[in-house]
Amino acid sequence: MTNMDVIIAGFGTVGQGIAEVIHQKQDLFQKNFSQKVKVVGVFDTSSYDYSKEGLDPNQLVQRKLTTGRVGTKNREGDINDFIWSSSYDVLIETTPTNIQDAEPAFGYMMSALMTGRSVVTSNKGPLALRFKELTRTAEKYHAQLRYEASVGGAMPVINLSKEILKGERIYSVRGILNGTSNFILHRMREEGLPFDQALREAQEIGIAEADPSYDIDGVDSACKLAILANSIFDMEVTVKDIARTGIRGMTEEAVALAAEQKKVIRLIASISDSKLEVAPRMVPVGHPLSIGGTLNIVQLLTDLAGDITIAGRGAGKKETASAILSDLVALMQEQKTKGFRY
Amino acid sequence: MTNMDVIIAGFGTVGQGIAEVIHQKQDLFQKNFSQKVKVVGVFDTSSYDYSKEGLDPNQLVQRKLTTGRVGTKNREGDINDFIWSSSYDVLIETTPTNIQDAEPAFGYMMSALMTGRSVVTSNKGPLALRFKELTRTAEKYHAQLRYEASVGGAMPVINLSKEILKGERIYSVRGILNGTSNFILHRMREEGLPFDQALREAQEIGIAEADPSYDIDGVDSACKLAILANSIFDMEVTVKDIARTGIRGMTEEAVALAAEQKKVIRLIASISDSKLEVAPRMVPVGHPLSIGGTLNIVQLLTDLAGDITIAGRGAGKKETASAILSDLVALMQEQKTKGFRY
Repeated sequence: MTNMDVIIAGFGTVGQGIAEVIHQKQDLFQKNFSQKVKVVGVFDTSSYDYSKEGLDPNQLVQRKLTTGRVGTKNREGDINDFIWSSSYDVLIETTPTNIQDAEPAFGYMMSALMTGRSVVTSNKGPLALRFKELTRTAEKYHAQLRYEASVGGAMPVINLSKEILKGERIYSVRGILNGTSNFILHRMREEGLPFDQALREAQEIGIAEADPSYDIDGVDSACKLAILANSIFDMEVTVKDIARTGIRGMTEEAVALAAEQKKVIRLIASISDSKLEVAPRMVPVGHPLSIGGTLNIVQLLTDLAGDITIAGRGAGKKETASAILSDLVALMQEQKTKGFRY
Repeated sequence: MTNMDVIIAGFGTVGQGIAEVIHQKQDLFQKNFSQKVKVVGVFDTSSYDYSKEGLDPNQLVQRKLTTGRVGTKNREGDINDFIWSSSYDVLIETTPTNIQDAEPAFGYMMSALMTGRSVVTSNKGPLALRFKELTRTAEKYHAQLRYEASVGGAMPVINLSKEILKGERIYSVRGILNGTSNFILHRMREEGLPFDQALREAQEIGIAEADPSYDIDGVDSACKLAILANSIFDMEVTVKDIARTGIRGMTEEAVALAAEQKKVIRLIASISDSKLEVAPRMVPVGHPLSIGGTLNIVQLLTDLAGDITIAGRGAGKKETASAILSDLVALMQEQKTKGFRY
């Protein structure tokens, strides 16, 4: 029996979700990979804990929910020392996305990678801003960096493109990478609502934030597109390199005009001939990208298969944990096949 | 440099397609896996050839197209002796599907597996009729059996469900597994065509066969569904266990009634609570399964990710070759990681 010892960095919705999933899936880890995943460390903004024997994931969630703190110890000094010097195999990085300077997540990830530990992350900031530094560091220290959860929640586009489609040449990518915008556009079309009303509805049911600009101005889509560009096409771009038009103020007239032509308007993120763009586009009804609701969807154009389309839930606690789990499982699979250190 | 030596069984469209792709992708094999794929053997109904040094794939295609025969030697006696006793690593089985008794493909595959060679196939017959015999034989002789091309052409549902979603529990599967039926239903709705006219149109542009029953009566969908049931849910079913209703004689009234409810009719194949069924169903417009055209699409309901949807071209020479290629690449990847014999 091998153990995979993990530290969970950040303990918001995503951190709690993956702690619960690690607890739930122990049978699967043992049965399929003869392994056990132990949460040996955890920290949030004010507290931390470490135990070589393993912390109880359910107890961590319980403590966070009742006291607001995941750990029993107060954080003092630089938490990077903890990441650097503790004993563990994989850092699961789930702190909030910061698209200004990618910190503190970037530092956490580098601390793990530079000491040869693998990193699994849901955090768009470091990948959309400093991708190459991370991948080069991972390579240099023979560590792995996996980030399925950073693009499109449970939609497994990273592993699809990098593993299953390894034999294909991928020419272009286009998709819907933001569920909130898609929900608004879908409601405008289906119910003939004006933009403001569809947005309010999305806010009321918790799909859009009080400040919706990150979603409706295409920033979130652009971050994810930058990650796809770096990951699939080996580019060196940041979110700032994406030409970006959001859906703010989309008119009922535009939606009606599309309807007359048997089309819908969708906020499409695309990479084609090194052109990186997020913008509203007309899509024929019945086309895979005419999808409604809050789903995320990506279409990859390849040399042999033609268009391959993948769709899944773009957000949510369980859904994001699912993507992190798929990365942990890939590490276990490789360890099982190769007998390789994480 | 390792070599993967392959024999191609059958040299119709699919066999020719994979021969061309093997030729095209040598750089990729060498660069990513330090391997070379050599076609050492080939046969069709009347001829065969073998060369340890490798046969030229382009020459094979050329000979087949000009003479109707892939090989220079006449087939005599039982070709299973050839499969049994030649030296090679992987049998690529591309002979036509026979859903009566799965032969001769079943025998070819068993001959390869029982001598420890891995099999990659596009052939639905053996998998829809005698799945367990094949998988148990593969296991017994430490060979691999891969069959991405047998379900949905270039749509990578097998590798998605068995590899990327390995950490998930899959509860149910539903999808559109036949492009011809979907084209007909889509045209009936979009243009208000009667069934017969939409079918004739499909026949004229080469999407439907002269005898369309295999497609429109749901037989093709049922074969693929049986393979998914065996593969994803570890069932022991054959195509005969699928409750099957096709779309023959679908009325314009039914299509119009669905339209009034903002729905479309699709031929849905589904596995849920061990219930296996192919039947026309109403699907809301904007739902992933409301997809038009000849695409194949599958939705997997999982415990954590919720619904994951994958779509791709369901047929075609390059597209089927693409699925076979993904299986060859998976074998190479494993060999590279593990240093394991094919």
